[in-house]
Amino acid sequence: MPAAVDIDADRFRERFEAYADIGATENDGLHRLALSDADKRVRDRFVEDLEDADLDVRVDELGNIFGRYEGENPAAAPVLVGSHLDSQPYGGRFDGQLGVLTALEAVQSIAEADVEPARPVEVVNWTNEEGTRFQPSMMGSSGYVGFETVEELLAATDRDGNAAGDELERIGYDGDARCELPEEGVHSFLELHVEQGPVLDDRDLPLAVVDGVYGLSWLRITIEGAADHAGPTPMHGREDALAAASDAISEINRLPGRLADDAVATVGELDVEPNSINVIPARATFTVDIRSYDDAVVDEGVERIEREVEAACERHGADYEIDYVSRHEAMAFSERVRDAADRAVETADVPATHLVSGAGHDAQHLQRVTDAGMLFVPSVDGRTHNEAEFTEWDDCVAGAHVFANATLELANEDA
Amino acid sequence: MPAAVDIDADRFRERFEAYADIGATENDGLHRLALSDADKRVRDRFVEDLEDADLDVRVDELGNIFGRYEGENPAAAPVLVGSHLDSQPYGGRFDGQLGVLTALEAVQSIAEADVEPARPVEVVNWTNEEGTRFQPSMMGSSGYVGFETVEELLAATDRDGNAAGDELERIGYDGDARCELPEEGVHSFLELHVEQGPVLDDRDLPLAVVDGVYGLSWLRITIEGAADHAGPTPMHGREDALAAASDAISEINRLPGRLADDAVATVGELDVEPNSINVIPARATFTVDIRSYDDAVVDEGVERIEREVEAACERHGADYEIDYVSRHEAMAFSERVRDAADRAVETADVPATHLVSGAGHDAQHLQRVTDAGMLFVPSVDGRTHNEAEFTEWDDCVAGAHVFANATLELANEDA
Repeated sequence: MPAAVDIDADRFRERFEAYADIGATENDGLHRLALSDADKRVRDRFVEDLEDADLDVRVDELGNIFGRYEGENPAAAPVLVGSHLDSQPYGGRFDGQLGVLTALEAVQSIAEADVEPARPVEVVNWTNEEGTRFQPSMMGSSGYVGFETVEELLAATDRDGNAAGDELERIGYDGDARCELPEEGVHSFLELHVEQGPVLDDRDLPLAVVDGVYGLSWLRITIEGAADHAGPTPMHGREDALAAASDAISEINRLPGRLADDAVATVGELDVEPNSINVIPARATFTVDIRSYDDAVVDEGVERIEREVEAACERHGADYEIDYVSRHEAMAFSERVRDAADRAVETADVPATHLVSGAGHDAQHLQRVTDAGMLFVPSVDGRTHNEAEFTEWDDCVAGAHVFANATLELANEDA
Repeated sequence: MPAAVDIDADRFRERFEAYADIGATENDGLHRLALSDADKRVRDRFVEDLEDADLDVRVDELGNIFGRYEGENPAAAPVLVGSHLDSQPYGGRFDGQLGVLTALEAVQSIAEADVEPARPVEVVNWTNEEGTRFQPSMMGSSGYVGFETVEELLAATDRDGNAAGDELERIGYDGDARCELPEEGVHSFLELHVEQGPVLDDRDLPLAVVDGVYGLSWLRITIEGAADHAGPTPMHGREDALAAASDAISEINRLPGRLADDAVATVGELDVEPNSINVIPARATFTVDIRSYDDAVVDEGVERIEREVEAACERHGADYEIDYVSRHEAMAFSERVRDAADRAVETADVPATHLVSGAGHDAQHLQRVTDAGMLFVPSVDGRTHNEAEFTEWDDCVAGAHVFANATLELANEDA
């Protein structure tokens, strides 16, 4: 029988509630944007907790925070576990935070138990996973695996022109450690997260092992028309940027149903200029987020969106430009990590299923350089990126228990 | 042969160019929002010019500025002539300003000429015609004719919460004169304005006598959906407020063609919340501006818009609320004023036509209490509410010449 560990469910819950107070909104949500003052406060608390758990703390150049438990063989490649502490604007308490605290609870429980693992285990909080204040999203893990360079990530600016690097310095998390893979490599990465979709809640299941992540493409489309007076300008003489954008957005929302069962497309941002009640819009800028587990579907979707935008602009006498903001290919997580998770599920005797993630996660970047995997706990009604985001506490505990044992199993692999 | 007057075209042009510098934009437009610092500067200059022209200046409680020339019979009801000096955000130099300076040039020319009219003539600058900073639009003329009360108009606030009354005080134009019709009434009102549509330019005509003004309805529609993650939320589980708004806006833009030849409908403002690239929009708020010279068409249009919004919201699982912001009925200008204008056109031998105005104007409010009328000069390419707004100077001069003589004729009517 393999080594096993129990988590301290009371400590886990107390800590979760304390963290949820840092940047809490009136409606029990969380407003803790990356590198904000609230982000600084939660990082301070996290560092304190890592130290209390006797973990070795280090902060790297991108502000990623690691807490290391040495294990039997400090020279072996470590197992990494964690998620992110930043939130969406007026987002939920579970997204990211639950994963970091699950990882901390797992490592602390392992450190306290009589089950010294073979490999080092490191808890990590990745900087700016959400990407709403600074783009790209998943900044910390991207720099860590070398997908984007630390320099370009630090140069990213928010809407007010503040650079991520300056904000890191301002909150005191421009760390000394190099942001790079250790020489000995990383053995594996495991992340627990809320599903952010309705499947587990619909099926009344507490847990899923994640098989992979959807591919996605982000576009920013600017339509240029001409400002004219809403009264005396006949319909046929107009170049209405918003009329063109609306036609395109309606078509973009109809597109997924024509592409594939799992395809989704969303227009989340739209800004109109001059935005005046009696002036025909001169400019409309909107984003598109399109995803599927099949990259060919994503690419086909982008092509169809281009055609719809072109047709809408021709209809309304407008011009357009498309900025291809980012493209992440669909990916499958490591079989080794999925198997370890499946075994921990089986040992714990928790009902679980397998899912593909529609959302992007740091684990995706880690899969580029090591064996990565994820566990999902349910999101009630699929609600997320929303103050109403909720997961039953029993499901969080079941998830953390499985997570701790999967972590221990990975940490005991051939070191 | 009736009395006639010539304007001073050089003075008129110099003055126009000087005024156009006050609040000028880089692209030769005008950014002079009502009750802003730029509005104060142009008012100061206007008062100076009224005084230089020996007109009696008074400022009323709403900041309307009058310059009075007494005429032979100071007890007779005066002829009012004028327009507005405020502009759209990054609007054009001709909208409003040309009308005020035409009126000033007309009255100054009459005062200087040997043609003492029977009645007093007053030049007027109406406060906040545009209505983009403070709503309602046409505030000064509305208060003057008693359509809305001075108290409610002064209480209107801009987006930053500043009250119109406080801003008037701040710029020093909270005048002592009561904002009301004089006891002897107003004999008539005449306003020159740019067409703000393409008809005169298309037909290569310098001038139009305006028969009336379109009816209009303004709506503000709020669609409420639910914020969810753009990735893991299937298309069928969504309550996407922007998807619903886009469907409705596309239909609203198709509506005029199905209603009447002269109908127009515009969605000029749209704001999305939370406005994040990977979050399904929870709220979309947009305005509708619908107009026709036939009020039954406007009302039918509003009903169809309600049905389209309802259908779009049902399709996307969203809720909505409609705020009926304002409704102005279509109106015909006074035959007496139109006839005076027609005669001045004929005497001047200027090619001209008759038009209905798609835009609202202060003259519309004056028609509620007296005989009002308007002249239009062309807008090149119909461009307006736009820095590129342009009228050939020869057309401005021809318009001002006809305007001065129509004013003189009205001022000589049975006093």
